[in-house]
Amino acid sequence: MARSYFRPNVEAMTGYVPGEQPAAGAKVVKLNTNENPYPPSPEVIEAARRAADETLRLYPDPTARCLREAASRAYGFPAEWIVAGNGSDELLAMLVRACVSEGEPVAYPVPTYSLYRTLVRAQGARAVEIPWAEGYGIPEGLASAGARLVFLCRPNAPTGTMVPADAVRALARSLDCVLCVDEAYVDFADSEDDTCLELVREFDNVVVLRTLSKSFSLAGARVGLGFAKPALVNELLKVKDSYNLNRMSLAVGTAALDDIDHMRENAARIRKTRARLAERLAELGFDVLPSQANFVFARIGHPTRREPQGRSRGRTKARELYEALKARGILVRYFDQEDVREGLRITVGADAEVDALLDALNDIHHQDTKSAKND
Amino acid sequence: MARSYFRPNVEAMTGYVPGEQPAAGAKVVKLNTNENPYPPSPEVIEAARRAADETLRLYPDPTARCLREAASRAYGFPAEWIVAGNGSDELLAMLVRACVSEGEPVAYPVPTYSLYRTLVRAQGARAVEIPWAEGYGIPEGLASAGARLVFLCRPNAPTGTMVPADAVRALARSLDCVLCVDEAYVDFADSEDDTCLELVREFDNVVVLRTLSKSFSLAGARVGLGFAKPALVNELLKVKDSYNLNRMSLAVGTAALDDIDHMRENAARIRKTRARLAERLAELGFDVLPSQANFVFARIGHPTRREPQGRSRGRTKARELYEALKARGILVRYFDQEDVREGLRITVGADAEVDALLDALNDIHHQDTKSAKND
Repeated sequence: MARSYFRPNVEAMTGYVPGEQPAAGAKVVKLNTNENPYPPSPEVIEAARRAADETLRLYPDPTARCLREAASRAYGFPAEWIVAGNGSDELLAMLVRACVSEGEPVAYPVPTYSLYRTLVRAQGARAVEIPWAEGYGIPEGLASAGARLVFLCRPNAPTGTMVPADAVRALARSLDCVLCVDEAYVDFADSEDDTCLELVREFDNVVVLRTLSKSFSLAGARVGLGFAKPALVNELLKVKDSYNLNRMSLAVGTAALDDIDHMRENAARIRKTRARLAERLAELGFDVLPSQANFVFARIGHPTRREPQGRSRGRTKARELYEALKARGILVRYFDQEDVREGLRITVGADAEVDALLDALNDIHHQDTKSAKND
Repeated sequence: MARSYFRPNVEAMTGYVPGEQPAAGAKVVKLNTNENPYPPSPEVIEAARRAADETLRLYPDPTARCLREAASRAYGFPAEWIVAGNGSDELLAMLVRACVSEGEPVAYPVPTYSLYRTLVRAQGARAVEIPWAEGYGIPEGLASAGARLVFLCRPNAPTGTMVPADAVRALARSLDCVLCVDEAYVDFADSEDDTCLELVREFDNVVVLRTLSKSFSLAGARVGLGFAKPALVNELLKVKDSYNLNRMSLAVGTAALDDIDHMRENAARIRKTRARLAERLAELGFDVLPSQANFVFARIGHPTRREPQGRSRGRTKARELYEALKARGILVRYFDQEDVREGLRITVGADAEVDALLDALNDIHHQDTKSAKND
């Protein structure tokens, strides 16, 4: 037989599976991919319209200078400390490519963002997956895994939990590899100052990632930012796609960063709705992890007042509940993975969307109670 | 000393160097990055404006379905045979990632698109660079290089030359690896039918790349297309960034493909200007390679009527000429690389831009003659 045309690690893997995208125009309450329910700044829409002109015939600036300067104004780091990505997903991929050779270990606590595993496999590297410590703290083994790259999702997806910045500092100090602190969701944390950005000034090996997808309401524009010392940024630039951001996303991202207050107002609204959602879910018997993100992870069947059956029941129940919600036009995220199979990740939508979700859950609960009585 | 945080192959390499991008508003005749001088279709601008709305808060379709269906209508391949990239540059990178492990050879004729070398180095793979055969034909050694991936740029950059489709077919048959036929410039070929797209139906190992950057006047939108059998497409999808095209580029690309006649009219105009440019450059003493692209490669100092000094003189003259043109506000591309140092790559601009270039060349020529007399 002829040898394969592809690398064994690529043949053996499956690609990343994004959340479902309903067809355009479908009537769906979409709480499955952590999109922001509020529109981006009007300045952003205006910038996008201005970019929609004949200059599309010209290449974008490969250095994304205007965007990096806007990020510099917004975050107080020199533009040379900033690298722009086609979403922070591209920055994650660039980190793997720059730091990790085939067979070398990449470590991260699990459960976490499943793209990390996909990127490690695509690189032919080795994933060292270490369960979070009790209370979703940094696990002991992370520093001693001999990794060439460590990912730390903060707040973590899909749990919403967040390790303290001091613990990240201690981790950075003990590593002799690059530590990527993925702060895609950090704008939703209870305290606006609770970020690891400042660690970038202290350490040569820390890169902090941000995205405009969630808090800036720009998932559709694909703009991510990486912050690190210039020596680290320069290695990432070598493995960057030459024109990775197009003219429209550069314009949109720049306008969004220049109106950062708009983002902050939306993040504050989402924090409020999150508190209400978490409270109501707990009342409905879910075990809700404390979330600092724009989603909550609600476990089913944990020992609580109403559902004393424990974990084993949750594992089958979560999928059933996901299906029952979907049948009612409400999309949430169910992960068919060992460590998160017992719960659902629910995006914090607008208040009306959250109400629709809660109504549907009540409805399902009553049906269950009725059929249990009939048994 | 602490070990490096980065892979040795990445530390040792330099990134891809794109052509200069003058500051916005700068008065420059820009003939250095093969941009199309004519605007994209009005339908494209309209689609970009429509996409500039509040739906930017939502993720784009990760499968790029609407774009792939438009490509299917335009080119007559099923959508499952088509993969969309953030420019064809991203598709080139995906091919390397899917096919080539560290240390494995990637072969291509040189001189060619310098990004191939950058991508091979970033992967930690080995570049096997084989000079074109006489008359820029496929070199003997290409099929027998034992490569895991072969790149063939057709028409080739920066020479503009094009190998016949039959020669590509013979090459595909003799390879037991993937052959990537990079047809970024093929819409400018003298015959519209002179493409390798049909080879995709014949061979499991052929992928043909197209881009909307040049002929569709959309360098700023970053839309590339790959055509191959579904089995090959599926392996590429595994190493694709999950949301690689944003909502705006999807809309723009779809509209462009649905108005393919607009592209064809512009390509026809560029072909006419190319013929005039090549003729005038030859009259000025340049050795102009026969181009099927939207640029010409003009060698200096080859044995011609006016410049009998031969290659050695050309090597220093090309850079001087590039600088002299730049001083007159005209940007062309000079590559400081061994095999292309003797010439300039000049984009076929609008007629007025080409006239400005020719005037400047005449002016420089007369100054040279004058100073030679004064010596």
